[in-house]
Amino acid sequence: MSGNKAVAYKEPGVVEVIDTPYPEFELKDGPGVNPANVGRKVPHGAILRTVSTNICGSDQHMVRGRTTAPAGLVLGHEITGEVIEVGPDVEFVKVGDIVSVPFNIACGRCRNCKEGKTGICLNVNPDRPGSAYGYVDMGGWVGGQAEYVLVPYADWNLLVFPDREQALEKILDLTMLSDIFPTGFHGAYTAGVRPGSTVYIAGAGPVGIAAAVGAQLLGAAAVLVGDLNADRLEQVRAMGFESVDVSKGDPRDQIEQILGTPEVDAAVDAVGFEARGHGSDSAHEAPATVLNSLFDVTAAGGALGIPGLYVTGDPGGVDEAAKVGSLSLRLGLGWAKSLSFTTGQCPVMKYNRQLMMAILHDKVQIAKAVNATPISLDEAPQGYADFDKGAPRKYVLNPNGYIKS
Amino acid sequence: MSGNKAVAYKEPGVVEVIDTPYPEFELKDGPGVNPANVGRKVPHGAILRTVSTNICGSDQHMVRGRTTAPAGLVLGHEITGEVIEVGPDVEFVKVGDIVSVPFNIACGRCRNCKEGKTGICLNVNPDRPGSAYGYVDMGGWVGGQAEYVLVPYADWNLLVFPDREQALEKILDLTMLSDIFPTGFHGAYTAGVRPGSTVYIAGAGPVGIAAAVGAQLLGAAAVLVGDLNADRLEQVRAMGFESVDVSKGDPRDQIEQILGTPEVDAAVDAVGFEARGHGSDSAHEAPATVLNSLFDVTAAGGALGIPGLYVTGDPGGVDEAAKVGSLSLRLGLGWAKSLSFTTGQCPVMKYNRQLMMAILHDKVQIAKAVNATPISLDEAPQGYADFDKGAPRKYVLNPNGYIKS
Amino acid sequence: MSGNKAVAYKEPGVVEVIDTPYPEFELKDGPGVNPANVGRKVPHGAILRTVSTNICGSDQHMVRGRTTAPAGLVLGHEITGEVIEVGPDVEFVKVGDIVSVPFNIACGRCRNCKEGKTGICLNVNPDRPGSAYGYVDMGGWVGGQAEYVLVPYADWNLLVFPDREQALEKILDLTMLSDIFPTGFHGAYTAGVRPGSTVYIAGAGPVGIAAAVGAQLLGAAAVLVGDLNADRLEQVRAMGFESVDVSKGDPRDQIEQILGTPEVDAAVDAVGFEARGHGSDSAHEAPATVLNSLFDVTAAGGALGIPGLYVTGDPGGVDEAAKVGSLSLRLGLGWAKSLSFTTGQCPVMKYNRQLMMAILHDKVQIAKAVNATPISLDEAPQGYADFDKGAPRKYVLNPNGYIKS
Amino acid sequence: MSGNKAVAYKEPGVVEVIDTPYPEFELKDGPGVNPANVGRKVPHGAILRTVSTNICGSDQHMVRGRTTAPAGLVLGHEITGEVIEVGPDVEFVKVGDIVSVPFNIACGRCRNCKEGKTGICLNVNPDRPGSAYGYVDMGGWVGGQAEYVLVPYADWNLLVFPDREQALEKILDLTMLSDIFPTGFHGAYTAGVRPGSTVYIAGAGPVGIAAAVGAQLLGAAAVLVGDLNADRLEQVRAMGFESVDVSKGDPRDQIEQILGTPEVDAAVDAVGFEARGHGSDSAHEAPATVLNSLFDVTAAGGALGIPGLYVTGDPGGVDEAAKVGSLSLRLGLGWAKSLSFTTGQCPVMKYNRQLMMAILHDKVQIAKAVNATPISLDEAPQGYADFDKGAPRKYVLNPNGYIKS
Repeated sequence: MSGNKAVAYKEPGVVEVIDTPYPEFELKDGPGVNPANVGRKVPHGAILRTVSTNICGSDQHMVRGRTTAPAGLVLGHEITGEVIEVGPDVEFVKVGDIVSVPFNIACGRCRNCKEGKTGICLNVNPDRPGSAYGYVDMGGWVGGQAEYVLVPYADWNLLVFPDREQALEKILDLTMLSDIFPTGFHGAYTAGVRPGSTVYIAGAGPVGIAAAVGAQLLGAAAVLVGDLNADRLEQVRAMGFESVDVSKGDPRDQIEQILGTPEVDAAVDAVGFEARGHGSDSAHEAPATVLNSLFDVTAAGGALGIPGLYVTGDPGGVDEAAKVGSLSLRLGLGWAKSLSFTTGQCPVMKYNRQLMMAILHDKVQIAKAVNATPISLDEAPQGYADFDKGAPRKYVLNPNGYIKS
Repeated sequence: MSGNKAVAYKEPGVVEVIDTPYPEFELKDGPGVNPANVGRKVPHGAILRTVSTNICGSDQHMVRGRTTAPAGLVLGHEITGEVIEVGPDVEFVKVGDIVSVPFNIACGRCRNCKEGKTGICLNVNPDRPGSAYGYVDMGGWVGGQAEYVLVPYADWNLLVFPDREQALEKILDLTMLSDIFPTGFHGAYTAGVRPGSTVYIAGAGPVGIAAAVGAQLLGAAAVLVGDLNADRLEQVRAMGFESVDVSKGDPRDQIEQILGTPEVDAAVDAVGFEARGHGSDSAHEAPATVLNSLFDVTAAGGALGIPGLYVTGDPGGVDEAAKVGSLSLRLGLGWAKSLSFTTGQCPVMKYNRQLMMAILHDKVQIAKAVNATPISLDEAPQGYADFDKGAPRKYVLNPNGYIKS
Repeated sequence: MSGNKAVAYKEPGVVEVIDTPYPEFELKDGPGVNPANVGRKVPHGAILRTVSTNICGSDQHMVRGRTTAPAGLVLGHEITGEVIEVGPDVEFVKVGDIVSVPFNIACGRCRNCKEGKTGICLNVNPDRPGSAYGYVDMGGWVGGQAEYVLVPYADWNLLVFPDREQALEKILDLTMLSDIFPTGFHGAYTAGVRPGSTVYIAGAGPVGIAAAVGAQLLGAAAVLVGDLNADRLEQVRAMGFESVDVSKGDPRDQIEQILGTPEVDAAVDAVGFEARGHGSDSAHEAPATVLNSLFDVTAAGGALGIPGLYVTGDPGGVDEAAKVGSLSLRLGLGWAKSLSFTTGQCPVMKYNRQLMMAILHDKVQIAKAVNATPISLDEAPQGYADFDKGAPRKYVLNPNGYIKS
Repeated sequence: MSGNKAVAYKEPGVVEVIDTPYPEFELKDGPGVNPANVGRKVPHGAILRTVSTNICGSDQHMVRGRTTAPAGLVLGHEITGEVIEVGPDVEFVKVGDIVSVPFNIACGRCRNCKEGKTGICLNVNPDRPGSAYGYVDMGGWVGGQAEYVLVPYADWNLLVFPDREQALEKILDLTMLSDIFPTGFHGAYTAGVRPGSTVYIAGAGPVGIAAAVGAQLLGAAAVLVGDLNADRLEQVRAMGFESVDVSKGDPRDQIEQILGTPEVDAAVDAVGFEARGHGSDSAHEAPATVLNSLFDVTAAGGALGIPGLYVTGDPGGVDEAAKVGSLSLRLGLGWAKSLSFTTGQCPVMKYNRQLMMAILHDKVQIAKAVNATPISLDEAPQGYADFDKGAPRKYVLNPNGYIKS
């Protein structure tokens, strides 16, 4: 077990499969590892053989060169695995457990973790609260698009599936628990979706679809999803949601046609900072488009869940403001409507157990909804490329053959 | 329009259809009317022609002689109607509107109403907070199992359906908004049901089934319903819920067989004070049975929603304690498990709009779940008798022929 | 009773005391009255003889010419009065009651009112949800800086003080219940302030001070208030709060000196769109300054309460974006810190009863904190001028001599 | 460091100071240790030199012989200490830290801990969820009324005070963070106390007083405390709360005299199962007295916080029902008033950090309120005896001389 094949960022537009060392219970130096984290001991960690690991839209920001990610950074923060080794401090997780790994790394011992705010753990990223595997500026924890991966604070972080056989059978659904299903659900939840709500979700990529499934699980009466991409809109309709084609213009009119009123109770931004304009502007990046349109279509007293990523620095931003993460927002409109907003990483641990229960009891079909598509580790570069072109799929890497066709 | 046929309580075990006066915008003296309410002006009221009005399990307490209800009291607090007259203070409700009437009468002007606590309005019942149509000791507002009924504070109390035709088409679902659907939902909601929860509901009558549908709408992963009645348990299974036959004994073992663990996250008491024992005790009334068994099967940290009715006085109680509404409860067990409890009338207005949306958008099939069964006003006495015997049906009176077969 | 002296907006920088008609139970045409509201009957209204009525910072936006307010508009939305006449639909409020009037006008009958969202009532302003007395584009309800004022939906809107004598004795505290005390409290509450929190409040005008008092009442461990104005900062310190002088630069360093850490748990924007820059920029208007600095000083996972007013149109805005209510906000920073935000008018009814209780039981000294300063109606123009210059006072008009010196 | 003086239960009515072994990082066999916990390794633990450790009312249940506690059980679950050794798995807590120990022992790794429910941790007590130091049937973790004590899962459980010197200066306040201040606060918080509430607290022992201080910190307008003991009622008044003497009868009349209304918004049971009757019944134990009187005096729609201990078995119970923890409760009355109830151990970690902040910033004077009285370890038997007689004091043991007179 001395090798470990992994997917790494090479340069803008390019990822490659490389050979990296098999993990140890220590965070070694490497591309993107925070110097203050080099040499950190991880006796509380577990080493997983990867069962499945998904390509995420937020990986694409790095791959498109919209961040300062260094070459060689091993990607991957959506990880499900089998525990094959545990450090000496691990007490409850056992070798052989099939586990879901929340993408946010958390210590389980700081003030924020004690409050359930695992997306902003204070002890895992020397630079700021919050961390993730395989992501630039997030502390340097090695990504999991690999055969093996180290998970720190394993007793705290890992969600153990109750039955191995059942877990492997439902793996294409359960693999979504590491990030997008909780993230989409968090968007819907923080938008205040409850039984009977009407909801508009901007973005029909996997997070947007997951938000739609989350809204459905929360009892929403009507779930509308908007996008520019015709294939993705087709997938929206195939799953029984209403589609809104923003290439035709702002969503207000289409919402009115569907609901009889141009506003919804709750709205979710599942797009983030690489938003493009609506209608005739859709060829251009316009980072404030989504939020400003949500201010427009959310009814007075409503709320916005904003799981879509906004960054503090974007070298490829359309203007000076965008480069430092500033957006021109119609706050006056939002204020007049008494809107509220929730931003930030989803604290996956807050939701993953309950969403696992919904999957295990067949209440949701998240894999089908996001069109989960297993591919081999070697096919990852092609998966990245296709996903970047807007393929209405969620690519699931299968590095160790656990996923049977 | 000088007459008004209505269903009235006559004596223990007997209801009859009588002729009563057509309502005026004043609360007149009559059986069960609180003296302090006699002569009360109702310029804020609306007179409805009844579209549908359901027989409720809580009506049965009166009909069985378990209360001090006087002969001649007109029954009925589950009312849907068409507005045919409005008082001079009504501004927004219009003649011709099809409306749902929350069973709790509320003024919309007191501290509790302002806080959304319409089940304990301070201004409608001279004796205590809270009121209802056609119910003993609730102020004396005349019941709605009749051709016509007066609704006070109409702008506040009435939920107007957005479209008349659609409303009449879905009337067997919408008729459940006046009481049992919100009441069952309130049970599930106050029990803390959320996506992924496991739930046990005691009682498979209409409120229990409505709680099951409510739990489903809230995203529960597993919904179990217990009862002694084989027909009702059959209906439970037909709707896709899990059934627990408490005639076979306490529910703990059956829950374990279904879920793999003997405890649930959340529990609902949809039975109330006329509970019978479990297993071999099921022939006898044992008012604390349900609550004590819920203490047993609810996991530590869980919650109990208690929409089932408990009363302050019960002439037919099994012992002196029961006659004054005291129960011998295993509070020590509940405390050791850090349980919490919510009791009382459901504040219907808190939920009816959102549940209406769920019905109108076809998210729930509450009529089918409770086996809604329309009958004529003249058939009401038979409906009461059949329901009392445990028929797995929810009887819906159709006094004016709005409901088409 | 045929006359009614009132304070009216004349032109930018000028208010004057004028004679207007005594109110009737109908909304008559006049400056700023929405055409769709002209002739609206108000049988549910009460006419008050004003006991006290305060000058508000948001009035200043109109007086400075930053809105489209027409000449002749009678000002005043902070009203306490004695009921001297009630319309025929009023049932519970009585002539002789001393009452507080929430500045937001609400019908008590729409969906939003039923949900407690009285700041966005759907039935009082023909243009959009939400209304207020004496304010531009808010429906045209006549202001209360006058001897007499009409309050619609009196049973719903009015908070009756339990004892007349006690009310008049504490009038300088109770007069703050119509707006700034609930508004400041709402800022603190929506910022998530709870026992033990550290809080930074931007703005030491009356709303900022009220937010500080609100934070204290919510149990905050440390309350810091920032401003540019030395007199206001002196008042901050006199009341036992910590002061932050933003004329010296961004608040981060001063917060660190006071708390030992540069970030707080919760933050309140009590400034709004006419914000000026910090440090050397403080001579210039810079509408995004406050919000961006709050993103900076709020700890990850914290929340911002934003009672400070932001508008949809500002003829005097510093640039084209400001003129339509758009601000350049560092959303990337806020997102990285998982911040959440609540905007909009405070729904006064949600808080006024509990804050009244705190005043009546001597738990807070809001009048002293904001330096309540009674003046006569004729002195209103001078009060406006002094307040505009930053006098650390809250001016309370005394049109009918109820307030004894 | 081979010895460890400690306070142990000997027989009903008797505690003694004994010599016990200095702790190791393993749970050894001993009186009251659960067999399944014997030999459990504690590499995640810290050994503390006790700074202060308080006698708790719940210790008295054992000392009075009302439980199955075995002779030799070392008492003490209210512990503040200095860290003098840490196990190999401890990463963030450091030797020399002054720390508060929540009385509930929690693993920080189970479902309940992840949800913040540390009072019902699943991994520390083999018999049931939830554990505590030095308490019968709670797993057998050795008590802390001793010179030294072992704390498992130290990184998770311990609250580190930010400054050693400040901590020792305020030690009589901070020592209350291990149990009674959070427990009392939890009672008030779960009773729904908020700014402006009126609150009645049954029991003027330390937990009752702590609930009063908690209510005050939550902004309550009026705080009333009832007891039978004249000295404790005197302490209530000395701290500025209202006293209710239940030896004179049910509290309803006295509440009406104080508040002008016989009911309060919120109520707290700080007495528990050893309650005595009111008025002329006060010589007798009557375990349901307190709860039934709270049902009576809590206004419709109110809530009860029940931190007072109720047990599943009580060998000294007044009747067969009491011996198994069953109480005859007026649930009918509670239901008619739509009351809700929260029971169980306070999850200390949920509150201790924020209450520490309130102490460090001088917002509360909890030591003065409960009359904190330091005594030596050798004086513990006398302290137990005096406290049992109702001395209005909270005894704080000072085993290592940290507390200076």
